[in-house]
Amino acid sequence: MGSTEDLDYPQIIVQYSSGFLVSKVMFTACELGVFDLLLESGEPLSSDSIAACLDTSTTGMERLLEACVGLKLLAVEVTQKGALYRNTEISNIYLTKSSPKSQYHMMMYYSNTVYSCWQHLTEAVREGRNQYERTFGISSKDPFGAMYRSEEEMSKFMAGQNSVWSICGRDVLAAFDLSSFTQIYDLGGGGGALAREFVSLYPNSTVTIYDLPKVVRVAKEQFVSPEERRITFHEGDFFNDSIPEAELYILSKILHDWDDDKCKQLLAKVYKACKPGGGVLLVESLLNEDKSGPLETQLYSMNMLVQTEGKERTAAEYSKLLEAGGFGAIQVKRTGKLYDAVLGRK
Amino acid sequence: MGSTEDLDYPQIIVQYSSGFLVSKVMFTACELGVFDLLLESGEPLSSDSIAACLDTSTTGMERLLEACVGLKLLAVEVTQKGALYRNTEISNIYLTKSSPKSQYHMMMYYSNTVYSCWQHLTEAVREGRNQYERTFGISSKDPFGAMYRSEEEMSKFMAGQNSVWSICGRDVLAAFDLSSFTQIYDLGGGGGALAREFVSLYPNSTVTIYDLPKVVRVAKEQFVSPEERRITFHEGDFFNDSIPEAELYILSKILHDWDDDKCKQLLAKVYKACKPGGGVLLVESLLNEDKSGPLETQLYSMNMLVQTEGKERTAAEYSKLLEAGGFGAIQVKRTGKLYDAVLGRK
Repeated sequence: MGSTEDLDYPQIIVQYSSGFLVSKVMFTACELGVFDLLLESGEPLSSDSIAACLDTSTTGMERLLEACVGLKLLAVEVTQKGALYRNTEISNIYLTKSSPKSQYHMMMYYSNTVYSCWQHLTEAVREGRNQYERTFGISSKDPFGAMYRSEEEMSKFMAGQNSVWSICGRDVLAAFDLSSFTQIYDLGGGGGALAREFVSLYPNSTVTIYDLPKVVRVAKEQFVSPEERRITFHEGDFFNDSIPEAELYILSKILHDWDDDKCKQLLAKVYKACKPGGGVLLVESLLNEDKSGPLETQLYSMNMLVQTEGKERTAAEYSKLLEAGGFGAIQVKRTGKLYDAVLGRK
Repeated sequence: MGSTEDLDYPQIIVQYSSGFLVSKVMFTACELGVFDLLLESGEPLSSDSIAACLDTSTTGMERLLEACVGLKLLAVEVTQKGALYRNTEISNIYLTKSSPKSQYHMMMYYSNTVYSCWQHLTEAVREGRNQYERTFGISSKDPFGAMYRSEEEMSKFMAGQNSVWSICGRDVLAAFDLSSFTQIYDLGGGGGALAREFVSLYPNSTVTIYDLPKVVRVAKEQFVSPEERRITFHEGDFFNDSIPEAELYILSKILHDWDDDKCKQLLAKVYKACKPGGGVLLVESLLNEDKSGPLETQLYSMNMLVQTEGKERTAAEYSKLLEAGGFGAIQVKRTGKLYDAVLGRK
């Protein structure tokens, strides 16, 4: 960076320009089931076989596989029978549907919903608001009304969020010793993956997922089995309905959806409900104090512009919101992964 | 790559997923004129000033600028007056409209046309054909009919291609000593940037741009001044109309638009027109012989699927096409940048 060589040829600009091509190659290989097929087959396959099994064109599949090799998502071996493709280890773990750490659902949400909204990034910056209306022709006044515009969209969103916690959940919950809290409410806990991580990490805990009735219904149908007895549900809208008493409240990727006023309003309500000695755990992607990074968080903050009423914040900004709500003894822990943890106490 | 650490946390998958966010942040900063404003102002500006000058929301602009800092496209300095932003050197050279090496027009073509077509990458792979019909509701039977569906779209495409030659043109033309050729036809030479590089590099040459009448009209109106006397035009469709005699034909990013049959047909026609001792220069992005890379070329080959009837090829594949057309003494030169050169002789 910044050397004479870079100025003669703008490598980073070429790379940034191709960013969307890279995303879409990975998303499409996931969507078509390339990684699933190669996992199931148990042996390397030719491009023609893969195209035949997945009912695609041979010319398109061949190029898709070659690009996946360039991205190190597949490995190729040239044999007497021609080129044979197999998954790399990272693809087996993260890009197959059946893997416990699968990011498949997050990819599909990104590829179909987020990619479309970002077509209108320029308008989002001009107008300072989300782009649901322009992208999908639906009112953007209530972002979650828009995000949950159909059961299918809602289910995809919930599955996508669950994918995130399969790779980041344990770290944010282990950031602090939360074993003294046994009675937990996960506000907006949706698909339940974080609740599941919590009860697994803290054996004396029970977690109640507090979410909208339609979210709870889909969570019960698709994501949380009744046999998971330490996870229960509470139906409601935490902005408008009452919040029951508990020892610890988790607000995971909730505050980043809303402006400061709504965040303060919610935190004050949580504070009121919270048992003395209890606390609130914020799980968010933290910006550096000088907002110089991390890049992923800066990009997510732009996504909050495109999709919600919120933004990503610094640890100091979250601390101020917590203090405004009444919480004290605030501790911050960065995990080094996408999501970090902030704990406040009553 | 491939270490235990990577398997515990899929850094490359997170990075690939965010690729489209990175592209769009850069494209939008270009489109809104952030880099132009900072170049013209001659001094660092605050987020609020930039938002006011460019008539955007302050909340959107602040986040856009922060993300550009994360991408090293802007630099920030925190002063008593708050954060002040300025262009990095690479942005001054490549992202401002007025720079001779500006990639602005390519960015706009990518951001508006290519990004939209790639929404349908999965269908392109399934069907093995371009996605103009699905993306823009226009027939995809004639790709250039679709790409040139309006004068505005055609002009954007031509401007985008010119941007490419401002960074890659000299290298591909200097790959071989072409000074013995004085009478050149640039088939499909469009906006003329490569012709301009040619006459600048080879002082005894004249270049005739052979392109469709509507392309020639826009080239004369917008891109090539009549004072550039060593560049002339010839109107026609090189598949259906005759090709005049010349010493050297340039086919720059032409063959990659078409299938092998059409390439052979065109090359045979060029061979017939070519003076004995003359040649043809192919300018294309070359795939490695084992198709293991380069990644950019693999991605471009997918784009050829999404937008054209062609693909990117290896040097051996181009050599075969040239030989099928009658050409010999084939030489290949990789430039290390996006585009490479292949020379065949009659």
